[in-house]
Amino acid sequence: MELSHYPQINPPPRLLMGPGPINADPRVLRAMSSQLLGQYDPAMTHYMNEVMALYRGVFRTENRWTLLIDGTSRAGIEAILLSAIRPGDKVLVPVFGRFGHLLCEIARRCRAEVHTIEVPWGEVFTPDRIEDAIKAVRPRLLLTVQGDTSTTMLQPLNELGAICKKYGVLFYTDATASLAGNVLETDAWGLDAVSAGMQKCLGGPSGTSPITLSPQMEAAIRRRKCVEQGIRTADHQQGEEEMIWSNYFDLGMIMDYWGPERLNHHTEATSALFGARECARLILEEGLEKGIARHQLHGDALLKGIQGMGLEVFGDLQHKMSNVLGVVIPKGINGDQVRHLMLEDFGIEIGTSFGPLHGRVWRIGTMGYNARKACVMTTLSALESVLTHLGYQTTQGAAMQLAWDRYAQENG
Amino acid sequence: MELSHYPQINPPPRLLMGPGPINADPRVLRAMSSQLLGQYDPAMTHYMNEVMALYRGVFRTENRWTLLIDGTSRAGIEAILLSAIRPGDKVLVPVFGRFGHLLCEIARRCRAEVHTIEVPWGEVFTPDRIEDAIKAVRPRLLLTVQGDTSTTMLQPLNELGAICKKYGVLFYTDATASLAGNVLETDAWGLDAVSAGMQKCLGGPSGTSPITLSPQMEAAIRRRKCVEQGIRTADHQQGEEEMIWSNYFDLGMIMDYWGPERLNHHTEATSALFGARECARLILEEGLEKGIARHQLHGDALLKGIQGMGLEVFGDLQHKMSNVLGVVIPKGINGDQVRHLMLEDFGIEIGTSFGPLHGRVWRIGTMGYNARKACVMTTLSALESVLTHLGYQTTQGAAMQLAWDRYAQENG
Repeated sequence: MELSHYPQINPPPRLLMGPGPINADPRVLRAMSSQLLGQYDPAMTHYMNEVMALYRGVFRTENRWTLLIDGTSRAGIEAILLSAIRPGDKVLVPVFGRFGHLLCEIARRCRAEVHTIEVPWGEVFTPDRIEDAIKAVRPRLLLTVQGDTSTTMLQPLNELGAICKKYGVLFYTDATASLAGNVLETDAWGLDAVSAGMQKCLGGPSGTSPITLSPQMEAAIRRRKCVEQGIRTADHQQGEEEMIWSNYFDLGMIMDYWGPERLNHHTEATSALFGARECARLILEEGLEKGIARHQLHGDALLKGIQGMGLEVFGDLQHKMSNVLGVVIPKGINGDQVRHLMLEDFGIEIGTSFGPLHGRVWRIGTMGYNARKACVMTTLSALESVLTHLGYQTTQGAAMQLAWDRYAQENG
Repeated sequence: MELSHYPQINPPPRLLMGPGPINADPRVLRAMSSQLLGQYDPAMTHYMNEVMALYRGVFRTENRWTLLIDGTSRAGIEAILLSAIRPGDKVLVPVFGRFGHLLCEIARRCRAEVHTIEVPWGEVFTPDRIEDAIKAVRPRLLLTVQGDTSTTMLQPLNELGAICKKYGVLFYTDATASLAGNVLETDAWGLDAVSAGMQKCLGGPSGTSPITLSPQMEAAIRRRKCVEQGIRTADHQQGEEEMIWSNYFDLGMIMDYWGPERLNHHTEATSALFGARECARLILEEGLEKGIARHQLHGDALLKGIQGMGLEVFGDLQHKMSNVLGVVIPKGINGDQVRHLMLEDFGIEIGTSFGPLHGRVWRIGTMGYNARKACVMTTLSALESVLTHLGYQTTQGAAMQLAWDRYAQENG
């Protein structure tokens, strides 16, 4: 192995305007470069407690069990699903994009009996439709995606908690891509579990997943308690239900690690925790509502610019996530060639799409650290240049003017 | 929430001389503070390929599938066990400490039929003992721990691969705490799977787990292939065996993400990958063998110093890991008080113990960035001061002199 071929890391500078990951806030990267602490150092457990408190603010909850799962956003999803779903449990998944399919996939691997309802990509569900399905299926859990970046749609959740309560259903949402860029009210909406990811509106790197659990969800998980052999003592009572079929994702053990007993489980990913703490701190410093309004403003300015370029946007705009936009690739234009020129000649990344939208739609994100005017204007300008270069006809400058108008309206 | 109570992160400076985590190499923390890349950016996939190549060097293998699992070291263990063990499979676990129990625990959650053999804490197994058990049990997998920090013992593995081959057994070892500080020869020893953690001899922060899989292990996993719904196409053939009962830890899907198809699974934890790349790069730059010799030197200097202080060490010294030492807490001394004074008054962390050794043994690590003379000398000196302060009788300066003698011997 010729080590001279492996120089010091030096990633090319990129403006990441896809559906995530986006550029991390430099303050978050700096926080992550702090030196480590031992996992039971009082300074470390204090930081863990602070992270719990800060994410209660971000999730808008009083839930005691608000903590991090050491893994990417789908680790948070899987920890909740594996811990909550007992083999054979019925779950209902309203699928409106790829990440609904992912919930089905994970639920099946938890040996759930999975029931789905579907709408075409680009739409969301009415509460009535979901209530009807709950009445028909009688699931133990309702598994939803709040914002599905594959379609850019945001499922309204505010009425679902009351419906779930009425039928005794545990209510989960995957807020990976939506949290902190769109309104999410864990307690007010009656959510029993929410999971998120760092690399979208939270403005950090992928690698740890904040979650929150209601007391009802905690109780359901505690009934499956199983303390690990090798650290179990006579004082540890085991639960009355079937154990959780994973050690790493056993939320009972993870709660005991984050709780006062500090019962050893994994070794907390300290750098990721420092980063997650800084993300939440910066969000609450800005103000959660102001941050969401910022996502709405820049998302809308991008939308106006894209429309001003004569491009069609994808999906039901009434239910669009603030932080990602689907742009229909115009006829005669090669979508991958545009993405390639954007990246190579402008250092800007925009996203492709999955499944039925692959090759038909670009996805452009405005989130976290990149929900900023300069990012929107630069991306619009570069996209206009690339499209013009490839023969697409548009009024020069119209896109940027409409974005400017949108910003002027905000300030006026 | 009063945000002034949550200032910028500022961990107290600590010298981490426990069984891990240890202080990360500052160069690793700097690498991790690099700005992010999109997951399909050619620069990112190039870094992923480099990480695979670098860890082949660290694991001493030609295995194609040498990659990172996004989670702590037990995520790497669980990914391998969940992917390799089919429900009902027989596994054999030689248990010589807490982390053997952990392998049993995880294997049970994979619904394995778990068979164990045990030795008292502080000892290891002979190859004959393991071969006899294999003959009796006829397991599909042998699950071993190479270095169990709970007892500081290092299980010899070099003869086990041939035994496993003879009986058609897949051979796994957990090298979380041993890799890069003790000899491990993945290919020469016939290992089918190895997992590791960053926060020990590799010198980084916990949060990603390097693993390597032999072609035999790959084939076993491929037979359980199940491409995720939502990204599955007609070209994707499903495997003939029972699917893997986890999405996050499905190594088939993780291989497809790291392989040329780059089939989306999780979003790679970019900062953790940058850190893992730097750890491996620094190890190979020093030279893997030189780094192991460094661990042996500083571990031995610590041992000589501790013995010079009149303290008893724990376990069979012929089979001690190079990088961690068990020190028997002397009669009349409160072990926790010593650890508290070391931390509060000297900023030095040493470890407590689990299970039968709890309250009886301290564990002192010399690993990764802290396998350095200054760390050893400072720790010995502080420990002598604390013990003297608490009334323990020892010849002043003898510990440090014996450590110096050991270093002089190396240089002479």
